[in-house]
Amino acid sequence: MVRVGVDENLSPELLIDLPSEVEIVRIPRNGSDQLDVDFWILPFARRDAGDTFTRLRGVKVVQSMMAGVDWILPWLPKDITLCDGRGIHDISTSEWVMAAVLSSAKRFPLYRDLQSLREWSGQAAVADGFLNEQGAQTGQYRILGDDLSGKSVLIVGFGSIGAAIEARLAPFGVTIARIARSARETPTVFSVSELHRLLPEADIVIAIVPFTPETEKMFGRREFALMRPGALFINAARGPVADTDALIEALEARKIRAALDVTDPEPLPPNHPLWSAPNCFITPHIAGSTPEFIHRAFRFGAAQVRRYLAGQPLENIVSDAGY
Amino acid sequence: MVRVGVDENLSPELLIDLPSEVEIVRIPRNGSDQLDVDFWILPFARRDAGDTFTRLRGVKVVQSMMAGVDWILPWLPKDITLCDGRGIHDISTSEWVMAAVLSSAKRFPLYRDLQSLREWSGQAAVADGFLNEQGAQTGQYRILGDDLSGKSVLIVGFGSIGAAIEARLAPFGVTIARIARSARETPTVFSVSELHRLLPEADIVIAIVPFTPETEKMFGRREFALMRPGALFINAARGPVADTDALIEALEARKIRAALDVTDPEPLPPNHPLWSAPNCFITPHIAGSTPEFIHRAFRFGAAQVRRYLAGQPLENIVSDAGY
Repeated sequence: MVRVGVDENLSPELLIDLPSEVEIVRIPRNGSDQLDVDFWILPFARRDAGDTFTRLRGVKVVQSMMAGVDWILPWLPKDITLCDGRGIHDISTSEWVMAAVLSSAKRFPLYRDLQSLREWSGQAAVADGFLNEQGAQTGQYRILGDDLSGKSVLIVGFGSIGAAIEARLAPFGVTIARIARSARETPTVFSVSELHRLLPEADIVIAIVPFTPETEKMFGRREFALMRPGALFINAARGPVADTDALIEALEARKIRAALDVTDPEPLPPNHPLWSAPNCFITPHIAGSTPEFIHRAFRFGAAQVRRYLAGQPLENIVSDAGY
Repeated sequence: MVRVGVDENLSPELLIDLPSEVEIVRIPRNGSDQLDVDFWILPFARRDAGDTFTRLRGVKVVQSMMAGVDWILPWLPKDITLCDGRGIHDISTSEWVMAAVLSSAKRFPLYRDLQSLREWSGQAAVADGFLNEQGAQTGQYRILGDDLSGKSVLIVGFGSIGAAIEARLAPFGVTIARIARSARETPTVFSVSELHRLLPEADIVIAIVPFTPETEKMFGRREFALMRPGALFINAARGPVADTDALIEALEARKIRAALDVTDPEPLPPNHPLWSAPNCFITPHIAGSTPEFIHRAFRFGAAQVRRYLAGQPLENIVSDAGY
């Protein structure tokens, strides 16, 4: 009988899609007993996952439900099949990115701050100031949002989530450029070596690369300097993909704006300057995680187990940390 | 020579698209002189527009650049052609609505508040609490956003902006129902008489009707009571389309959420309870107005003037206050 290992406290409702012929092995957080597990489902990043692994015997497959597997690669022997969560985050993460793009363009974080101050600083607040100003762009509003329409978007790390972002951007009338580790065609995806050429052409730069040695601090002083003044940097990848010091500098210089779901360090300590950097909106690493996502993730895990039982090829096998 | 009237202080850069053969008449805000104007361009709602009109002689066309003309109808003689701004707000307003839908679903206003408190309350803050809870939906996060995917959206007031909203919603995998004053087909648009039947089926209700006697307080106690628990009410129409007292009641009862670009009254006074109603995000009547919008509006105005000069039919003639 195939033994599927899950955390001891995993909610039973998440297991209903697993085939009835498997044995479910609940793995205690603490303990020293050796447990036999063939197929280990690891839903979320855990610091102690490598320790837990040393207590498991006979593992053939590790199924992560994270898009990135940087936290597994260091301790997992190469002869064990590792599958990642590619695809299951597409909906939730691409929706977060669209929310970040649009709410940054429309200055929603600043309007929320004004709401907290009970301050109405919009059209009706200034009678006709707009018409009294040189230049149509200023005067009527203290804060004037942008249209997304007509903007250029650079997606850095064009994989499954990147394609989902592009699909959702399509009706907004933007131009899109794509970067991945290797250049591809149909659609045109540029190699990461073209990053410096493409950065100055983008109004919005979306980082959605996996975290690997190659992508660590991929966005630093030079990259932020190459961005257009007022451009929006979105990090929906991993915090260390950006150099935090360089990001804060670029924000404080009013060079760029940012919307971040991930930071370096994480959690961001209360005294960290990034919290209050100008034109920077932060969510605490929640982009991929919605109630619907959890269920999608375990439905995918169950489908993988069924493929394993049937001797069919598994999906999402990690060959290397590519993107 | 055709005389085009504009406000005395209008920025010259907005007039560059007007045909050179017209005479531009700058209309002083104050004064008693009578002025000859054939074609009056009124970019924004002004309380004194009716007074200004009494100083104009020979007006044949009034071109408003607002989507709604409720502020013009009371004082404009019926024999003068009134054109509205239908279409020119499609991009900016539909983008605001998408920003409001997505940022409400992802709980961005609450995350902004947590950012101001320098509080990281997301995935990394709670080690594995998710797995220790009954029910997958709760525990890991203090605030858990929703997916937009799979939700049902009701667009109330399906005109030009409504169609632009629908186009932008299309890739998100939602179901859409449409309401207008009169039922239509292809696509199916239900009559406003079906509002009470459709409200309980929607996760997101978007008000984008014009403000008319029929739409005043269209959303009141009964309508909010018919909405699903936790449903999102979006007002991108006019403030008085919703009954403010009933809206506050529904918000304080945690019955619904709201995202409002318009309020009643406007501007919202600092002591108004709507500012701090739970799960309510407010922007100060800025949805339609972006720098790009202003230029689109005056390009449209110039095109209307050219049509007038050429004896061609004008676009956007207001026949009645329909939607």
